[in-house]
Amino acid sequence: MALSQHLSKSRQFLAIARNYSAAASLVNVEVNDKSGVAVVTLQRPPVNSLNLELLTEIKQTLTGLEKNKSRGAIITSAFKTFSAGLDILEMYKPNPDRAKEFWTTLQDVWISLYSAQFPTVALINGPAPAGGCLLSLCCEYRIMVPKAVIGLNETQLGIVAPSWFAASMENVIGKRQTELALTTGKLFTTDEALKVGLIDEVVQTKEEGLEKAQGFIGSFARISPFARSLSKQTVRGGTIRSMVKGREADLQLFLATIQQDQVQKGLGLYIEALKKKQAA
Amino acid sequence: MALSQHLSKSRQFLAIARNYSAAASLVNVEVNDKSGVAVVTLQRPPVNSLNLELLTEIKQTLTGLEKNKSRGAIITSAFKTFSAGLDILEMYKPNPDRAKEFWTTLQDVWISLYSAQFPTVALINGPAPAGGCLLSLCCEYRIMVPKAVIGLNETQLGIVAPSWFAASMENVIGKRQTELALTTGKLFTTDEALKVGLIDEVVQTKEEGLEKAQGFIGSFARISPFARSLSKQTVRGGTIRSMVKGREADLQLFLATIQQDQVQKGLGLYIEALKKKQAA
Amino acid sequence: MALSQHLSKSRQFLAIARNYSAAASLVNVEVNDKSGVAVVTLQRPPVNSLNLELLTEIKQTLTGLEKNKSRGAIITSAFKTFSAGLDILEMYKPNPDRAKEFWTTLQDVWISLYSAQFPTVALINGPAPAGGCLLSLCCEYRIMVPKAVIGLNETQLGIVAPSWFAASMENVIGKRQTELALTTGKLFTTDEALKVGLIDEVVQTKEEGLEKAQGFIGSFARISPFARSLSKQTVRGGTIRSMVKGREADLQLFLATIQQDQVQKGLGLYIEALKKKQAA
Repeated sequence: MALSQHLSKSRQFLAIARNYSAAASLVNVEVNDKSGVAVVTLQRPPVNSLNLELLTEIKQTLTGLEKNKSRGAIITSAFKTFSAGLDILEMYKPNPDRAKEFWTTLQDVWISLYSAQFPTVALINGPAPAGGCLLSLCCEYRIMVPKAVIGLNETQLGIVAPSWFAASMENVIGKRQTELALTTGKLFTTDEALKVGLIDEVVQTKEEGLEKAQGFIGSFARISPFARSLSKQTVRGGTIRSMVKGREADLQLFLATIQQDQVQKGLGLYIEALKKKQAA
Repeated sequence: MALSQHLSKSRQFLAIARNYSAAASLVNVEVNDKSGVAVVTLQRPPVNSLNLELLTEIKQTLTGLEKNKSRGAIITSAFKTFSAGLDILEMYKPNPDRAKEFWTTLQDVWISLYSAQFPTVALINGPAPAGGCLLSLCCEYRIMVPKAVIGLNETQLGIVAPSWFAASMENVIGKRQTELALTTGKLFTTDEALKVGLIDEVVQTKEEGLEKAQGFIGSFARISPFARSLSKQTVRGGTIRSMVKGREADLQLFLATIQQDQVQKGLGLYIEALKKKQAA
Repeated sequence: MALSQHLSKSRQFLAIARNYSAAASLVNVEVNDKSGVAVVTLQRPPVNSLNLELLTEIKQTLTGLEKNKSRGAIITSAFKTFSAGLDILEMYKPNPDRAKEFWTTLQDVWISLYSAQFPTVALINGPAPAGGCLLSLCCEYRIMVPKAVIGLNETQLGIVAPSWFAASMENVIGKRQTELALTTGKLFTTDEALKVGLIDEVVQTKEEGLEKAQGFIGSFARISPFARSLSKQTVRGGTIRSMVKGREADLQLFLATIQQDQVQKGLGLYIEALKKKQAA
């Protein structure tokens, strides 16, 4: 890369990074100086569990990209797991105010990502259960590495995917497959995900994935961003309006659910098992 | 089977059977003592035509299973026909009160089966036209024997599948295929049904089908029944609410339709033809 | 063809043609005397651009067929292009009254064709971009020749397909594929269209296509037209009601859009480019 290109790239990155203030520790954003496409890398060790802080940074990143009229974003992970989903510690013995902010921020992330005016690609470079799957379902295109898994497997943990999680999956693979997937809590292998249409493409490496993702976003190079964005809105608008209309009720349902003794007991046992597994 | 197992099985069967009072003649229920799964066998000779009495027993059976927190139900037939659909005699020269009860009970069966908290499988061991197809569409999984047919073929008889029949099919095979199927009154062969996704699996014998059905329900063994049921509700809720909201109008439409001279004439001719066929 | 048949055919054609008064220049209607099926041939040179006059004739044709209780209609083109879509000249420096009538007539055509009581087939004998694709999506069956293209490619021109265009496509190929198609402005090749389900059949020649189309409509020969039409209504009703409910807002959106400087500038450049291309 020539020096001038390098400087240009740095400037662009800084321009965007400025919007995210000092909170750059859990999400890394790099903008390709030629394409203007941002690579948004989640990097909360060890498995990008979505806690309030990570979700807040993702939200700020998306807001920044929107303000900067981004040409597109590729969401991926710095680790071998794309994202392990919602951080269970946010739901276990919760502080009510924080729990409320946690869920509201998750809703905000969904709204921002699902309705992003710029093209979005999930480069799923490792397992993407539950909330990890949800993030990828918000994107317009899903690229996945082999031997990973993806799915809304909430029932496996004794909990229920909210209606907007389900709607996000229905809009990709239809109602029939979504019902089967949600009731069984199915984690699709890469091959199964491709077959059912849950992902669009399989790549051998993250690098190949970045190329393919750039290619997908590049296919919009000659399309009016305004027309593109309105067309996306035309298809997604109904789902977004339903979610926004129901978000307060959805929040109350979440708060009520995590206050149940049975749920707390289940989470406690799960956390205990995780600790033992890590210790072993 | 050891004697103790046999007794245990009998007890379970009796426990459930008690809920159905004496009306066990048109529906046989057997609960597997290991899995807790009920095999619900329709046995109204000769082809399980759905009249008021059979529908009432199906409804009572479903209510009983729900009350007993069933682990799952497999619906099948004692005969070589899964179900020939609604009994035309219920619509021909109808007694108004009975016609009303007939249709209301059909609606109740749909609501109970479509929203059942336990897993449901249709083991389609023979032809399943019209109402027979509808019963299977309410289940979560469909297993079918070769050389049978299935479909909402109402237009072939000059009548129209109600909107909730259509919605039940749309939720399985999508709007495009449902339109083609309904307008042409298509009866899918087993192979065609598998290809379009109207059924999930083909088995060579009813016995093999029972094994597969137990396997499907068994896949939920480690899933919280509560989370499973709410997830099903998440996906099916919209369809159920629409049907319940419109059920009074739907009933009136049915009653008005069967009072039409043209419909009565058509049914008369059809019944005449059936009688001649049976006599031959 | 025997003379009597020929006369019979002429009479039928005249009977229908009378309904369309003298305006038979842009649409040709021929009714097959055996099947009663109308072949509706669009013939506005050179590429069936949908201007007010052509849309008005299509609307009158559909109204006439409905009144005559048509057995079915096959829509095709007299040229090598099925239809190039909406005539851009209707949107460039528009007369407000004419622009309003233009869009209202397009809405009327959609409503008539989408809810036609008779079976409808699009015989896509050449490229069908944008409005051309929309016409075909309103039909119940799509047959296409090789080496053509079809799609809602509005974003390629910097404009946005209205929500009822999108809904028409969603009802055929689902939400996922529609989003991809609309955002990218994709023109599917014949092979791609078949694979994704956007068309139902490929034929080598227009003649073969006419045979297949007659065959599809012929499959309804023994189906009650009344039951068939109500079944179609059952599946399409929701989409039609949404469109009708929103048609005034949709009209205002169209009128506001074509009054924007940016849109007029874009259309001007596009028309200039077309003129140069024709001159070359």
